[in-house]
Amino acid sequence: MSIVVVGSVAFDDITSPSGTVKGVLGGAATYFALAASYFAPVRLVAVVGDDFGAEHEAILKKHGIDTCGIERAPGKTFRWGGTYIDNLNEAKTDFTDLNVFEKFSPQIPKAYEDSEFLFLANIQPTLQANVRRRMNGVRLTGCDTMNYWIQRTRTELAETLKLVNVLLINDTETKMLANEKNLPRAAHKVLAMGPQALVVKHGEYGATIFFREGAFGIGRHPFRAPTLPLEEVKDPTGAGDSFAGGFMGYLAAQEELNREVLKRALFYGGVMGSFAVEEFGTTRLQQLTREEIDARFQIFRELTHLE
Amino acid sequence: MSIVVVGSVAFDDITSPSGTVKGVLGGAATYFALAASYFAPVRLVAVVGDDFGAEHEAILKKHGIDTCGIERAPGKTFRWGGTYIDNLNEAKTDFTDLNVFEKFSPQIPKAYEDSEFLFLANIQPTLQANVRRRMNGVRLTGCDTMNYWIQRTRTELAETLKLVNVLLINDTETKMLANEKNLPRAAHKVLAMGPQALVVKHGEYGATIFFREGAFGIGRHPFRAPTLPLEEVKDPTGAGDSFAGGFMGYLAAQEELNREVLKRALFYGGVMGSFAVEEFGTTRLQQLTREEIDARFQIFRELTHLE
Repeated sequence: MSIVVVGSVAFDDITSPSGTVKGVLGGAATYFALAASYFAPVRLVAVVGDDFGAEHEAILKKHGIDTCGIERAPGKTFRWGGTYIDNLNEAKTDFTDLNVFEKFSPQIPKAYEDSEFLFLANIQPTLQANVRRRMNGVRLTGCDTMNYWIQRTRTELAETLKLVNVLLINDTETKMLANEKNLPRAAHKVLAMGPQALVVKHGEYGATIFFREGAFGIGRHPFRAPTLPLEEVKDPTGAGDSFAGGFMGYLAAQEELNREVLKRALFYGGVMGSFAVEEFGTTRLQQLTREEIDARFQIFRELTHLE
Repeated sequence: MSIVVVGSVAFDDITSPSGTVKGVLGGAATYFALAASYFAPVRLVAVVGDDFGAEHEAILKKHGIDTCGIERAPGKTFRWGGTYIDNLNEAKTDFTDLNVFEKFSPQIPKAYEDSEFLFLANIQPTLQANVRRRMNGVRLTGCDTMNYWIQRTRTELAETLKLVNVLLINDTETKMLANEKNLPRAAHKVLAMGPQALVVKHGEYGATIFFREGAFGIGRHPFRAPTLPLEEVKDPTGAGDSFAGGFMGYLAAQEELNREVLKRALFYGGVMGSFAVEEFGTTRLQQLTREEIDARFQIFRELTHLE
């Protein structure tokens, strides 16, 4: 079953202890789409400028990603520059040129309307809600957000959260959204806002999924998936979006959506995040095979499972 | 098989968002001994002052802990005061009165010498090394240390590390000891200093065990254990020592020491740490049953294991 992803396509300048790249294809929707494409057909909704050429579209098309939802607007594509110095967990933003992304008003092509899975990458919450409302036949909606929207558009975000099934955010965002310092308590407050499940991403420590009582199964026991302890993280950009891509992609390929399936999806999220950071930009995500992905899934299992 | 633990016994004043307690029995060796006592016989080496009464000793004796290695010195027992405000992961130290602990020179009773397991809690590295050298028949030595010793007594600590099998420290200490920011790379540098295995404690995110190539089994794949997402952490004091107690205690009760056994020990470490923080001081560690411990072990398993 296909997934629609709505979010940013960008060109990034990135500096990390491993080097520097300039103008590489990035953006939340790009990382998500490439990661998810190994599991299910992906349909992209985004806006790009005149500088987005056939060579960029070819990267997406090669992975079977439907690009008919990419709007071409006059001007430049969203550009972002970030530097990872001491802390690979957090980029210092060098510049953010929104360009055509500033007026992004996502339009869902008719051909996308039968999609059963939807991922709302990190954009303004009202835009997210509008997209969700237009996709009536959707079976499961995943959603991302960030501290910027939590602080500035809390009311709008609260409306969006009523419409989504799984929210994927990090520890800090969870605590900020719930106004609560204890993570499990914060998680249950967030679940009370609407989502049936909350995935809290812990960076290098993996992720935890919290379930609302009775959602996708019995009880509300959380589940934790690891990340891979990597000896070199070249570029953490897009790790969270790649995680979401692996998570949603795996779900979209399953018959049934139950707890066990969501737990496995959490592992696949970690797997795709661990690949993304091995090379700059989306380089690694462009070169994978499903066999490599499943081999790493096994490594994640061995990393955490007793005999 | 019995475990000798060498370290501090203290009286603590603790303040957390859940309340305040004064003069409660604490110290690394106390937390360790109580946690380990559910798995194997424990023998304690420590120093206390005139204020350590029969009622305190009774707490230890009730758990079958051998107290003949507790030296009574004139003066007061080590006293520590700490406050957890915004951050439950790190105490703000209000005071440290070393008292009789300042001149602690650990003496191993003759009756302890046949012990096969030894845990060197966080004391000056040369004292740790001296104890290790006196315990010739030991099969496995665990060791803790802290940033204070890493910064001030690096040479002495390096000597100690040559004599221990498993070092248990946190992320920051591992990176500081290795002078390396990437955790897996730091871990392998620390393993090159002597220990066959390194347990890195991640606080609320669990712990990872790294193995030296070929130690306790084949290869050097790490293994990760979780902690329990708790809705209330009343008092984080002693969580790491309780972790070490569960880890070493489980090992001391096994016939063979292989990778699988060390992985399970990592889970039991997390289990005992998760109990310790549920009440102030050692309250929770004093009241457990082995059934409760094994039930929580199952919860840890369900938290991390796919079907």
